[in-house]
Order: sequence, then structure tokens, then C-alpha cells
Amino acid sequence: MKIALVGVGLIGGSFSLAVKRRRLHVEVIGVDKNSDNIKSALRLGIIDREASLGDAIKQSDVVILAIPVDALTSLLPQVLDMVDDHHLVIDFGSTKGAVCASVVAHPKRKCFVAAHPMAGTEYSGPEAAFSTLFEDKIMILCEEEKSGEKQLNLFQEICKNLAMRVVTMKPEDHDLHIAYVSHLSHISSFALSTTVLAKEKDEKHIFAMAGSGFASTVRLAKSSPAMWSPIFRQNQENLSGALETYIAHLQKFKKALDAQDAEIMVGFMKEANKIRPIIDGIK
Amino acid sequence: MKIALVGVGLIGGSFSLAVKRRRLHVEVIGVDKNSDNIKSALRLGIIDREASLGDAIKQSDVVILAIPVDALTSLLPQVLDMVDDHHLVIDFGSTKGAVCASVVAHPKRKCFVAAHPMAGTEYSGPEAAFSTLFEDKIMILCEEEKSGEKQLNLFQEICKNLAMRVVTMKPEDHDLHIAYVSHLSHISSFALSTTVLAKEKDEKHIFAMAGSGFASTVRLAKSSPAMWSPIFRQNQENLSGALETYIAHLQKFKKALDAQDAEIMVGFMKEANKIRPIIDGIK
Repeated sequence: MKIALVGVGLIGGSFSLAVKRRRLHVEVIGVDKNSDNIKSALRLGIIDREASLGDAIKQSDVVILAIPVDALTSLLPQVLDMVDDHHLVIDFGSTKGAVCASVVAHPKRKCFVAAHPMAGTEYSGPEAAFSTLFEDKIMILCEEEKSGEKQLNLFQEICKNLAMRVVTMKPEDHDLHIAYVSHLSHISSFALSTTVLAKEKDEKHIFAMAGSGFASTVRLAKSSPAMWSPIFRQNQENLSGALETYIAHLQKFKKALDAQDAEIMVGFMKEANKIRPIIDGIK
Repeated sequence: MKIALVGVGLIGGSFSLAVKRRRLHVEVIGVDKNSDNIKSALRLGIIDREASLGDAIKQSDVVILAIPVDALTSLLPQVLDMVDDHHLVIDFGSTKGAVCASVVAHPKRKCFVAAHPMAGTEYSGPEAAFSTLFEDKIMILCEEEKSGEKQLNLFQEICKNLAMRVVTMKPEDHDLHIAYVSHLSHISSFALSTTVLAKEKDEKHIFAMAGSGFASTVRLAKSSPAMWSPIFRQNQENLSGALETYIAHLQKFKKALDAQDAEIMVGFMKEANKIRPIIDGIK
């Protein structure tokens, strides 16, 4: 199998390393506008060689698009313009509505499978990639009825090979739920970080007092602005609603705190405790 | 050394297990109003025997108070009423202002060392205790000038023995900084949990889509309301200020999001990224 890997960062790189570890015969052709990333990806064994987008597509069976979602919506229609009927094109974008809409009427729509691997870390770039990132994780698949049978079968085979479980979902459902269980977490972390940094100008107090709880809550504040800004903009409506509810819940808690109302505070925390079995089930 | 351990849960239990692992001759006498906790603590080797508070103090050199902070401020003066000049009494409360104030004029003040181990997990009770919880962590010490020399020396020896580093701080500084680097994290997690649970009534979507980022951010929402409610109330003023700033930062981000203002959003995230070296330094 020959893969054109467009975007050789954390997600694309981890995908490639995983496929390479599990298949004997695979060649990965790297495409990335950042030449430093290409050099790193070659050195790290993520890609076997570099090519232009057009050449990489011509020479491959599978095209993986692992790039920021704003680049994705403009590049995906161009990629479909270049593919033949046998090609499988998969995107790994963190939003699915705009991406699916960008090719809804494209004559080569059946070559495309809209996917989102529920895997990532707070790091980015080829150096952050590792071969087990996708293992035992969920792969969300959207609008499978618009993909070709041959393409879907190959996609399923690849996911099985990576030990991933495929879950199907409508793009609008994906974008709504992901606002709550991923995008909102990132903003809560970013804001926690800016709040603490604004207060703790003298960093030694943070060093001295911050424990593993703080580190865990603020970890996502290390995430890449270049990657997240387009995601937040594409999912603005859902995310804005999630943020509004989150702020309302914080205000409700603050009101109880200021009134020293232990009963409301305890009730709030007991409600929050119900997340226990759910996060215990997350790998 | 004989220790009266008042409160045999996560913190008291982990302290006892650590001391027992590192010292040959130590007897730990357990005091806890919850008889199930006493039974568990005996079974887990956290305590060697049970006694009433009065008997445990009489028979010990060191008294450890590892109980919720509301119980602490009422019990600490009573404990000091019962001790002799040779006793060392240490509290592990997560707030320090009210605790220190409760015994500021007590004739036995010098027997008391006000401390806060910067260690914990989202779990509670004796079953959650483990012997390495305190290892390589910070122990905050407040108002050391009010403690006796003999008591301070023994406290320092115990901390060294546990591989903890002692950092001194005024109670009011402790309570202010801890509002930002610990208490606020907990509320951000509790509110994230209630927000997601309110939206995701059908839990299978959370199961399917939530990844390690969500789990990390919401982990503290598993924490014990019985422990945290008194902490939040005792630190209401500082925490209310921290929450106000946090909400303002979230609102600022939401405004930029709703205006699709990528520049402000990216600036906000880049500011948040500055937390990187700080959390990388947290153990």
C-alpha cells in the first residue's frame, strides 16, 4: 500500500508510525509545506520520501489529510479534483460539518471518508508522534453513506489494523458533542492558565504550591494555537453554547460560595461526581 | 515514636504508611469518628490500634490532624488543651488562615506546627492511601516562628524522612495562592463535569467521544464534596476573586470566539502556552 501523508505532525505522524509497525509493505510519501517538518519526519521514519501534493497523490492508493481544519476545507476539494476512482482519501479533522460540506456535491465524493480519530496529546509536530497513539481508541466516521463501498472497506480494514473501533455519527452530532467533551476542556484549560499566570506574576509560588491536580487540569493549555484556532472558529456556534453553559455553572457555584451556602455547593459537587464511572471508562 | 493519627483517610493514611515504611520503631494509634474507616485502617496496616482522642494523645509523642478543615478549627484548640509541653501537633489542613487563627493565643501554641502537604488525589478514605503519596512533594509550613524549637526540629526530621521539601509561607499568602493553583482547578473540573452531564443526557456519546484530554481536565470532579465544601467556605474570599477572574477570562475568550476574531483567540492561547515550563516542573 502506498500512502500520501499530507501533514506529518502529531496525528499524521502517529498514524504513519502505527501503519508502518503493523504492515510489512507500506510506503509513505510525505507532503508538508513546512520543510523542517519534512526533514524531521524523514529522520524519524514517519515518511519514506517527500513529494509534491500532485505527485504524491498520483503515486499512492490512500491519501491521508492530517492538517489544520481551515487548510482542510480548502484543500480537500482540490485533492478530490486530482484523484482517480480507485483512491481512498481520509481526513482526520477535529470538526466534521464544514469539511463534509466542502465536498458534498463533488463528483469524486465517494473517494472520500470523513473521519476523526479520538486521540491526541497537548503536543504537536512530527517529534510528538508515536506509534501507539491510535491504539484502542475510537475512530469517528461521518456520512459513511456518501463514501464508496471499496473505500469504506479499506478504511475499516486500516482501522482494524490499528486496533481502533469505528463509531458512525452525523457531522452535526459530531460537532455538537465534540464541543462539550473536547473543545470546552481545552478552553477551560487555556483560561485556567491565563488566570493563574495573570495572578502569579512571581512564578516561584506556582512552582512551590502547584500539585498534580493543577497540572492535570491545565495540561491542555500547552496545546497549539495554530491547530486549535481554526477548530474553534469552525465549531463556533456549538462551542459558544457550551461555553455559555459552563460560565453559567461557574456563576451558580460562585453565588453559592459567596452566600456560604454549603448545601448548594455540596449538591453541585455531588452532581459533578456522577462523571466518575464515565471517566473511569476512558482509556 | 508514637503517633496519634486523627483522621485515617487518604492524607492521614498515606502519611502513616510512609512513616511506617521508613522507620523501624513507630506505633500509630488511630482516632476516627467513622468506625468503618478504623476497621479499614487496621486491616490495611495504616494504624496499629484504635483509641479515644484523649487516650491517643496521652500515649503519643506526635499528634497528626488529618481531618476536614471545619472539624480542624474546632478540634485543634481542644487538642492543644490536652497536650503536654513535649508534644508535637501537626495539622494537614488545605487552608491555613482559619486554622492558625483558631489557636493564635493558645498557651500551648508552641506545640503546634501548621502544615499543608502539597499532595493528594481525587480519591478519599483509607483505601485510597498509599505510602509514596508524599514522596518528593512540597510541605508548606506556616507561622514557624510560633512553633517551639523542639517541635520544629522533629517536624523537619519527619519531612526529611518522608523525602519532602519544606517551604515556609505566611497563612494569608498560602490561602491566596492555593485558591489559584488548587481550589480553582477543582471548581473548573466540577463545573466542566456538570456542564457536560447536563448536555449529554445520553451518556453513550460521552463514552464514545471523550478522550484523555477530557479525562485529565475533569478528573478532579471526582473529589469528595465533604472534604472540599469546608475548604471552599474557609477560603471564600480568595476563591471568589479567583473565580471572578477565571469567569472574566472565559468571557473574554467567548467574545473573541463569537466575533470569529482569530487574532485575539490565538493571542489568548499563546499567553496560556506560557504555563508549559511551569507544569513540566511539577511532579
